[in-house]
Amino acid sequence: MSSIRIAVVQMNPVMGALETNAAKISRFIQTARGQAVDLIVFPELALCGYPPEDLLLTQHFLSDTQEQLEHIAAHTQGIDAIVGFAQKKNGAVFNAAAWLKNGEIQDVYQKIELPNYGVFDEKRYFVPGGQLVAITVKNIRLALSVCEDVWIEAGKYETQLQQCPVDLIVNISASPFHADKLILRKEILAGFACRNHAGMVYCNLVGGQDELVFDGGNMFFNSTGELLASSGRFQESVLMLDLEEHSGTWSCSSREWQDMAQTEWQPMDALPHELTRVEEVFTGLVVGTRDYVQKNGFSHVVIGLSGGIDSALTAAIAVEAMGKERVVGVTMPSEYTSGETLNDARELADNLKIRFLSVPIGKIFQMYRDELQPVLSEGTQGVEYENLQARIRGNIIMALSNRYGWLVLTTGNKSEIATGYCTLYGDMAGGFAVIKDVPKMLVYELSQWINERAGWKIIPESTLRRPPTAELRPGQKDEDSLPPYPVLDAVLQAYVEEDKSPDEIIQMGHDSKVVMEVIRLVDRSEYKRRQAPPGIKITPKAFGRDRRLPLTNQYRPQPKPTRG
Amino acid sequence: MSSIRIAVVQMNPVMGALETNAAKISRFIQTARGQAVDLIVFPELALCGYPPEDLLLTQHFLSDTQEQLEHIAAHTQGIDAIVGFAQKKNGAVFNAAAWLKNGEIQDVYQKIELPNYGVFDEKRYFVPGGQLVAITVKNIRLALSVCEDVWIEAGKYETQLQQCPVDLIVNISASPFHADKLILRKEILAGFACRNHAGMVYCNLVGGQDELVFDGGNMFFNSTGELLASSGRFQESVLMLDLEEHSGTWSCSSREWQDMAQTEWQPMDALPHELTRVEEVFTGLVVGTRDYVQKNGFSHVVIGLSGGIDSALTAAIAVEAMGKERVVGVTMPSEYTSGETLNDARELADNLKIRFLSVPIGKIFQMYRDELQPVLSEGTQGVEYENLQARIRGNIIMALSNRYGWLVLTTGNKSEIATGYCTLYGDMAGGFAVIKDVPKMLVYELSQWINERAGWKIIPESTLRRPPTAELRPGQKDEDSLPPYPVLDAVLQAYVEEDKSPDEIIQMGHDSKVVMEVIRLVDRSEYKRRQAPPGIKITPKAFGRDRRLPLTNQYRPQPKPTRG
Repeated sequence: MSSIRIAVVQMNPVMGALETNAAKISRFIQTARGQAVDLIVFPELALCGYPPEDLLLTQHFLSDTQEQLEHIAAHTQGIDAIVGFAQKKNGAVFNAAAWLKNGEIQDVYQKIELPNYGVFDEKRYFVPGGQLVAITVKNIRLALSVCEDVWIEAGKYETQLQQCPVDLIVNISASPFHADKLILRKEILAGFACRNHAGMVYCNLVGGQDELVFDGGNMFFNSTGELLASSGRFQESVLMLDLEEHSGTWSCSSREWQDMAQTEWQPMDALPHELTRVEEVFTGLVVGTRDYVQKNGFSHVVIGLSGGIDSALTAAIAVEAMGKERVVGVTMPSEYTSGETLNDARELADNLKIRFLSVPIGKIFQMYRDELQPVLSEGTQGVEYENLQARIRGNIIMALSNRYGWLVLTTGNKSEIATGYCTLYGDMAGGFAVIKDVPKMLVYELSQWINERAGWKIIPESTLRRPPTAELRPGQKDEDSLPPYPVLDAVLQAYVEEDKSPDEIIQMGHDSKVVMEVIRLVDRSEYKRRQAPPGIKITPKAFGRDRRLPLTNQYRPQPKPTRG
Repeated sequence: MSSIRIAVVQMNPVMGALETNAAKISRFIQTARGQAVDLIVFPELALCGYPPEDLLLTQHFLSDTQEQLEHIAAHTQGIDAIVGFAQKKNGAVFNAAAWLKNGEIQDVYQKIELPNYGVFDEKRYFVPGGQLVAITVKNIRLALSVCEDVWIEAGKYETQLQQCPVDLIVNISASPFHADKLILRKEILAGFACRNHAGMVYCNLVGGQDELVFDGGNMFFNSTGELLASSGRFQESVLMLDLEEHSGTWSCSSREWQDMAQTEWQPMDALPHELTRVEEVFTGLVVGTRDYVQKNGFSHVVIGLSGGIDSALTAAIAVEAMGKERVVGVTMPSEYTSGETLNDARELADNLKIRFLSVPIGKIFQMYRDELQPVLSEGTQGVEYENLQARIRGNIIMALSNRYGWLVLTTGNKSEIATGYCTLYGDMAGGFAVIKDVPKMLVYELSQWINERAGWKIIPESTLRRPPTAELRPGQKDEDSLPPYPVLDAVLQAYVEEDKSPDEIIQMGHDSKVVMEVIRLVDRSEYKRRQAPPGIKITPKAFGRDRRLPLTNQYRPQPKPTRG
């Protein structure tokens, strides 16, 4: 009967902060040694953060990485450690897992399966490895693997593994979050463990990096595919596994350490609370926002509060992420702003206990109109005055940002950015777009959930109930320009996230005119999205790195005439 | 002795306009048949344009492509045609060259070597082919190849070719332009022809697509590597080759057809005029601007004229691209605008004979100051008022754009966008950034060349001579904030384009303080570039698809202390 104690670290590195990350890894190792840990495991590219993108093309970044890895290795007397890093070797770069022990780099496994779809560009940077690396710790055979390696059934990795059976598979990952991803991930990992008759130690990155949030969720699966232990998600933590082997299967007792300052392990009686879909999305948005703000060194964020639901949700997320002292709300009313929305903005700020500023835009708007009159006298008055109001607000909030160093959080949702129902340099002006990947119906769901969780109306009832409006002309309603949101969101999901054709979407039961209009709006708004701030991916396909379309693009998918 | 007549089409497709492109291809084929052409060749992905990006992920795009290819094939009675297209086969997508003849698709070659670096993402979309395709036309053996296939010495493609010798290699390409690329391309093609003892028919795409310009430059190389024929670059044309084989080498007479409306071939006595570096950059900028405007359906462009050299160059390029009637200049003077710069803006507009509008920003700026006073009263006045002026100008020019449907061309150069010496939503507001990839020193060179070519000062002498200034505060000069441009541009080239480390740049002879300051400016401006409009790539590494860095990024390369 073999036994082993493994510490699986759900780590939140800072992109490119090689020294800081290395020091943190070394501290984890040191603490683990004190807890009689045999093997400590860190996620994919834990040393630099994921994805480092074109940093990987510079030789100095790669050699600085190697230097830091050697520093870490120096701290591994009497303990085995697996650390994800970018390895430069013979002119090639590998996405690698280093096996460190007794002060030295013992061996390096190079990721075999490189994802190059969705948000992933690994073939731009890495050469695929060719060789399985299995290590022995306390007489137990462990195969190293990196993320995608175990996602490809009967791929090169699995084929090699089948020729070299092991007791445990260690998978280090940088697997980004989207809603419902965990279900898929569990299936994949359990299936892989089962097929290969080995326990599966899963170690994922945690924290936000630009558009991506990593949700952690470290796990251990028995060789039967049964989930025996898991970490709480979305926070830095260590999952300590005490594993015992009994004729090919494992028993596992686990504990979780959530606060690096604690010296006592916190016993974990049961699997951690499973998050509902709304909870995991909310938490993802909070973590993504917090890390963007913190890792970029901002003291405060500032949000334009319109009295509408999008800015209310964004502000609530910001307060959860950073605390009320670091969030500033600004209302910028115009002649089209109703008393009700203005009250709602103020009430929200009161409810969230955030600082609230007001800068009216009416006089500035009038001055623009006067000065522009000579050059806008031809033609008929149109969208330019609506956009102008949005852009005045953009200027005001950016002036605050420039003066005080506050990060501007924009408040547009996915339904708006998809259809171009937003103003470049206006409401799109800002550094981070918190709910950019949240469709409008999910904005409502999240807002209601926030109120339910609080047990009172943090987000004012009238904000939730009022028909959405941009308030850029008298009596304006979103639904004057867009289909009702339940229809819009369904069509957008089919077209944007699932790449369905017009025919397929119409066959889902949608009106063909509506479908073609939505597609037209999406296609013609690509130029706006190209200049949009980054936002947090929470769906299978977000705008950004996930969906790359030409700006100049005359492809117009059409429904086919029915034949026969 | 074998002989063959080949028409090599330097085609400018419109991205995604499958029907339009197919109809154009069919017209080329029809005309060529009338000229007794044996084989007509079209560039890589000529049917859809390059790069189609995520259009390739939708099934309807791929099946529409297949449909159009079959329409083209129907026009190939009595002629052989090679057409680049995206092929869907057995669930995979290939970057392919179709061999069409007698109304049918005879065979399809699938690109073997897929580039996945720089601006290329082919491994995101395509599966590599595995099989050489050689066809026989008039007893001559021709191997088909697509772009990268012939750029990799002793790669998979060349290895296969060596086992199957041919008389001619047909290379269809979508090879984007940058300054001096042609020299490299000729070396590569001549070397490949030589090593494989075959003539090389090179067929490149032409025209602008977002950030990329394709320069065409169709060529024929003898099996000795000698260049025997070439097309004029940067315009749609047909290079007709009459080739005769004499014991393993070729004689070639060639003609070029430059105007599709002509029915007579234009005899070409000599190789076309070789463009100097300044000429090719200028032409690339003109073509890239023209195609972005035309293919996106804009009637006019509007440019903010500051009196400075960047906006002067941008306006001159726009007039060359579209004609003076379609270019509008706007001056937006403030209290800091000198009489001299205002005169220069007006003189430039007069010289270019473009419409000239004026919207002063002083009163609007004062109104912002008044209204912002309550919220900006804390702290000390700083960059927020400079940016505010730039953003008022951004709003004004966008109001014109929204009212009249004009495309805003921004005027920032590469040195500015590299160092962040520009205002988000201010001077960066617009749809297309013409000189975004042109370093400041090259801005001067291009401007001087424009005046030399004209034989008079189209760009006013005082614009050329005045020290660069943003005119956002009294007496401001660029060199108060930035190193002198000759130094700045040299450091930027080393750091941005060549990925050199601080040490390497200092070793080039630059002051280490200057180097570290420039690197700091570049690194901290990534968030601005992420929201910048696209612009034309003219250097080996442009900002945009070519250079992808995380926004959240704490990597700070440092010079290493000297050892010993």
